[in-house]
Amino acid sequence: MSNISNEQSLEIVRAREAVVPTRRPVAAGLEEILFEVLPVLDHGFVRVVDYMGDDSAIVQAARVSYGRGTKQVSEDNNLINYLLRHWHTTPFEMAEIKLHVKMPIFVARQWIRHRMANVNEYSARYSILDREFYVPATEQLAAQSVQNRQGRGEVVGAEEAKHVLRILTEDAERNYDHYLDLLNHDEDGKRLDEGRQGLARELARMNLTLNFYTQWYWKTDLHNLMNFLRLRADPHAQYEIRAYAEVILDVMRKWVPLTYEAFREHRLEAATFSGQAMRALLRMLAGETVTHSDTSMTKREWDEFRTKLGLT
Amino acid sequence: MSNISNEQSLEIVRAREAVVPTRRPVAAGLEEILFEVLPVLDHGFVRVVDYMGDDSAIVQAARVSYGRGTKQVSEDNNLINYLLRHWHTTPFEMAEIKLHVKMPIFVARQWIRHRMANVNEYSARYSILDREFYVPATEQLAAQSVQNRQGRGEVVGAEEAKHVLRILTEDAERNYDHYLDLLNHDEDGKRLDEGRQGLARELARMNLTLNFYTQWYWKTDLHNLMNFLRLRADPHAQYEIRAYAEVILDVMRKWVPLTYEAFREHRLEAATFSGQAMRALLRMLAGETVTHSDTSMTKREWDEFRTKLGLT
Amino acid sequence: MSNISNEQSLEIVRAREAVVPTRRPVAAGLEEILFEVLPVLDHGFVRVVDYMGDDSAIVQAARVSYGRGTKQVSEDNNLINYLLRHWHTTPFEMAEIKLHVKMPIFVARQWIRHRMANVNEYSARYSILDREFYVPATEQLAAQSVQNRQGRGEVVGAEEAKHVLRILTEDAERNYDHYLDLLNHDEDGKRLDEGRQGLARELARMNLTLNFYTQWYWKTDLHNLMNFLRLRADPHAQYEIRAYAEVILDVMRKWVPLTYEAFREHRLEAATFSGQAMRALLRMLAGETVTHSDTSMTKREWDEFRTKLGLT
Amino acid sequence: MSNISNEQSLEIVRAREAVVPTRRPVAAGLEEILFEVLPVLDHGFVRVVDYMGDDSAIVQAARVSYGRGTKQVSEDNNLINYLLRHWHTTPFEMAEIKLHVKMPIFVARQWIRHRMANVNEYSARYSILDREFYVPATEQLAAQSVQNRQGRGEVVGAEEAKHVLRILTEDAERNYDHYLDLLNHDEDGKRLDEGRQGLARELARMNLTLNFYTQWYWKTDLHNLMNFLRLRADPHAQYEIRAYAEVILDVMRKWVPLTYEAFREHRLEAATFSGQAMRALLRMLAGETVTHSDTSMTKREWDEFRTKLGLT
Repeated sequence: MSNISNEQSLEIVRAREAVVPTRRPVAAGLEEILFEVLPVLDHGFVRVVDYMGDDSAIVQAARVSYGRGTKQVSEDNNLINYLLRHWHTTPFEMAEIKLHVKMPIFVARQWIRHRMANVNEYSARYSILDREFYVPATEQLAAQSVQNRQGRGEVVGAEEAKHVLRILTEDAERNYDHYLDLLNHDEDGKRLDEGRQGLARELARMNLTLNFYTQWYWKTDLHNLMNFLRLRADPHAQYEIRAYAEVILDVMRKWVPLTYEAFREHRLEAATFSGQAMRALLRMLAGETVTHSDTSMTKREWDEFRTKLGLT
Repeated sequence: MSNISNEQSLEIVRAREAVVPTRRPVAAGLEEILFEVLPVLDHGFVRVVDYMGDDSAIVQAARVSYGRGTKQVSEDNNLINYLLRHWHTTPFEMAEIKLHVKMPIFVARQWIRHRMANVNEYSARYSILDREFYVPATEQLAAQSVQNRQGRGEVVGAEEAKHVLRILTEDAERNYDHYLDLLNHDEDGKRLDEGRQGLARELARMNLTLNFYTQWYWKTDLHNLMNFLRLRADPHAQYEIRAYAEVILDVMRKWVPLTYEAFREHRLEAATFSGQAMRALLRMLAGETVTHSDTSMTKREWDEFRTKLGLT
Repeated sequence: MSNISNEQSLEIVRAREAVVPTRRPVAAGLEEILFEVLPVLDHGFVRVVDYMGDDSAIVQAARVSYGRGTKQVSEDNNLINYLLRHWHTTPFEMAEIKLHVKMPIFVARQWIRHRMANVNEYSARYSILDREFYVPATEQLAAQSVQNRQGRGEVVGAEEAKHVLRILTEDAERNYDHYLDLLNHDEDGKRLDEGRQGLARELARMNLTLNFYTQWYWKTDLHNLMNFLRLRADPHAQYEIRAYAEVILDVMRKWVPLTYEAFREHRLEAATFSGQAMRALLRMLAGETVTHSDTSMTKREWDEFRTKLGLT
Repeated sequence: MSNISNEQSLEIVRAREAVVPTRRPVAAGLEEILFEVLPVLDHGFVRVVDYMGDDSAIVQAARVSYGRGTKQVSEDNNLINYLLRHWHTTPFEMAEIKLHVKMPIFVARQWIRHRMANVNEYSARYSILDREFYVPATEQLAAQSVQNRQGRGEVVGAEEAKHVLRILTEDAERNYDHYLDLLNHDEDGKRLDEGRQGLARELARMNLTLNFYTQWYWKTDLHNLMNFLRLRADPHAQYEIRAYAEVILDVMRKWVPLTYEAFREHRLEAATFSGQAMRALLRMLAGETVTHSDTSMTKREWDEFRTKLGLT
């Protein structure tokens, strides 16, 4: 796999070998993949490095109970659904997950906007970054959307794609070469030119482009993870961060299967209707034909309303 | 033990029996006491119900590493000390602990001011509270401090203590009796008077006094736990919350022994000197005798300065 | 008005008199009521003591603009609606409000659960609380709800109401008398008994009941204010905190009228349907008759679904 | 000034002209510079766009008072010093400031780590970035520090400096040219090549280097602003973010002069000594000569200790 080095692979294998007893709740599905590299994009990954709690821990916290939940799975399931449906968010804050993520800097910049999380990022003041940068797959090279000011439209033609890939690759390669040059380092960390001092790492890094990979440890609770996933697994999210969200959705399914199903049902597949939209809906249910001019919605709201009802 | 019922004891014993394998880091010292009741005050307790990470997890996050830290314990120790000394707080946010706490409502009101934590409290809208209230031990019945507007001074005399204890106990008992009466319930949850409807729980509870016990699940990360302990294990904190902080300090020692020692050294036993205080200190080190009038400190600052130097 | 003293009234009048020029955005509707006491319950209030930003400040932040928004009001309105509808919450975090609130302690305990706010509470370690406690109006004396484990049902009968009010009033009065006694203070702050030391304030306060009034300065941003209002102005919220939310809703309307209307439309009057509920809805729109057994909803979900559609 | 366009200048001038009356506390020193561009680095700036509260608002919140603070300035000053010295942080959270900042992306990446703030960043998914990138002044072109793994050492020689500046400038210019090419745009926003579709903005931006300028609205409270300044105005912070912190320190001085002085005294000029360091210090004050081997400090701690005492 190109996403990690052989040495890193070995460290992971060794870490996975150590199995010890604990009294804490264990999520069997997650233990299976603990520490493993789940590849994303061309050089990125998600690794689960630790977690706290499982579905039953949510129930236990909601009940402020003394032992483990001893109730039926179906009762736990009903409670979890109820909590999620009615925005009782605090029990979901009682489960926590810690990920090691490697992603392009422009993805990291979107990700960090979720403030209710803990982060330790690899420091380019302290260490030299690797020659690893993201180049989109051809089918991801899309033109600007015409409807959506901040989205993608059609995939560009083969000719243009080749042009784009050449620019992105050549510029990243050259800027990385120059990054090493500024540092006065060759690829193996040796001095290039004895007559030069080499620029400080904290300065040289500014020559790198936004598609270079960085990595961090990221820890958040299940409630905030769901907020992240709701926004970042959404079709309006930029593809590159969505690719991470999809992998983490699968991690969540292995970790807290009951909560995952409730989350799909009450968040991902749910639809919200405004006051006006509800009034239009009730008229439609009563058999009326409702047109845009019967409402005071903007054109955009009306289109969104019809889309939710599968009328477009 | 009067802090929990027999049934609760049994639930805890059963929970402690289930031991399962995990790949996650395990804190052996903490597993020893997991789920157990650590008594505080007359009816309160702290129970560790879950945790994530240990000393090595902090180091691992600081290094954004692939495997477990394989370095020497002494290196880990030096790094932890360095991080704490220089306020690099993010690696300490990577370890998390979850406690079940039972405490008087007036203690809960101070505790909740630490916002960087997750809380699920037992709901008195939903359930009926038990007849459990805090009555201070005689040696805790102190008069208002004369120096300190918000602290305690000398312990009151035996006569006054008896008077105080009688009022606190009688009022709590009576108000609890009336709480049940308002609910139209007897001690066993049966209706008192078939002719009455009974007041809603969310209303009846307002008749209880602030020394009644409540309980919650409380989860926080190690960085915020240290903030809590620094403020609440301090001699200026009210005794009742300090009693909890002392127990949690011991929990922390079992959980992350290296961080605990660094915390003692760089926070609990540390002293901070203002710009002025530093200038006075340097003059004293140079052999000068410095008096209050040589500085522009207020009287209070001067006294605090001398106290830090053990000169009072 | 019984909610504040004459001296406090005078301080407020004086504060309102001082008018000075500023270059900042000003919300004319809010300036009208700045500092004034807006009464809630029998002795409580809400006072707006400061604010930052108005509707146009939200638009300005969303556009990261250099000047004031110079666009049309209708464009601003469309943008605000769009932001709220699509959960672009950060621009609403750019407006801030600071309130002085006086409320019963049991209300303060619910209120403080909203962590994304700043709080300075009146300290009963430092000062003596006033003889002010909440007694519900007769029409608020409701029995426990039979459907809802944490709500109110029917109002209790006149006889029972009298009984309830007598208990609440007598216990609060007696406990306050004993609070003063513990402090060894009379109503005017003089020593009661020269032979006694008086208990420290931080201890004596525990004899007060949960309906005693406390007060605080509370500051939050508009996004978090809307979260607070969505939960606390909801019919499922306890009446006593809802009374505060209703007053603050009106404050919000005066402060940011465009956002207020969008909030009504897209939050307060909106309805959310789960994946299953959406599938049932689409079948109903297609003319099918859908019964509970055609879905896999729980009975409770089905009832909630029908309630949203006005079918009950 | 090269930091903003003429059109932006005009918008600012117009915004500054509008002066209206308010009942809120006004900070005269801050009104003076409101909206103005305070230049930082070669193209960056800080602009104060709004604020809430002043020194007296802190005091008012600490006292939970009804009117404005009517006490003496010296009393307010003593209270502010006391609060800061004893880490009573909540009153400082009651004042808030909103800045418009333009800074290189690598500075924005450090800045955003301060999570207790609100941010709206200019979106490169939505708009095209300007051809503006940071190039350090010659005297800032320093080599890697030899003592400090994450800092700068000596300034590089004139020859090397020229080499560095050529690389940084040429790469940024070329990458920006290619950014426009990817977008299929010329400098004036016209299509370059009718035969191409142009890459979506959210993709093209990844070709830019980390020294390109971005901008955002950033809002935080005074407590968190002081945390930011303590870390970022520190000599160990990277020069480029320190340049912003210095300008904001001056903004703070104009806004809350009493708090600013207390902050200098109790934070910026203060020194903290660990338990061990305190024991060494007391022995030195008693006239003993203490050497490293008399303590159990690491070499690094011992050096830091001596530096604080001006002994190096």
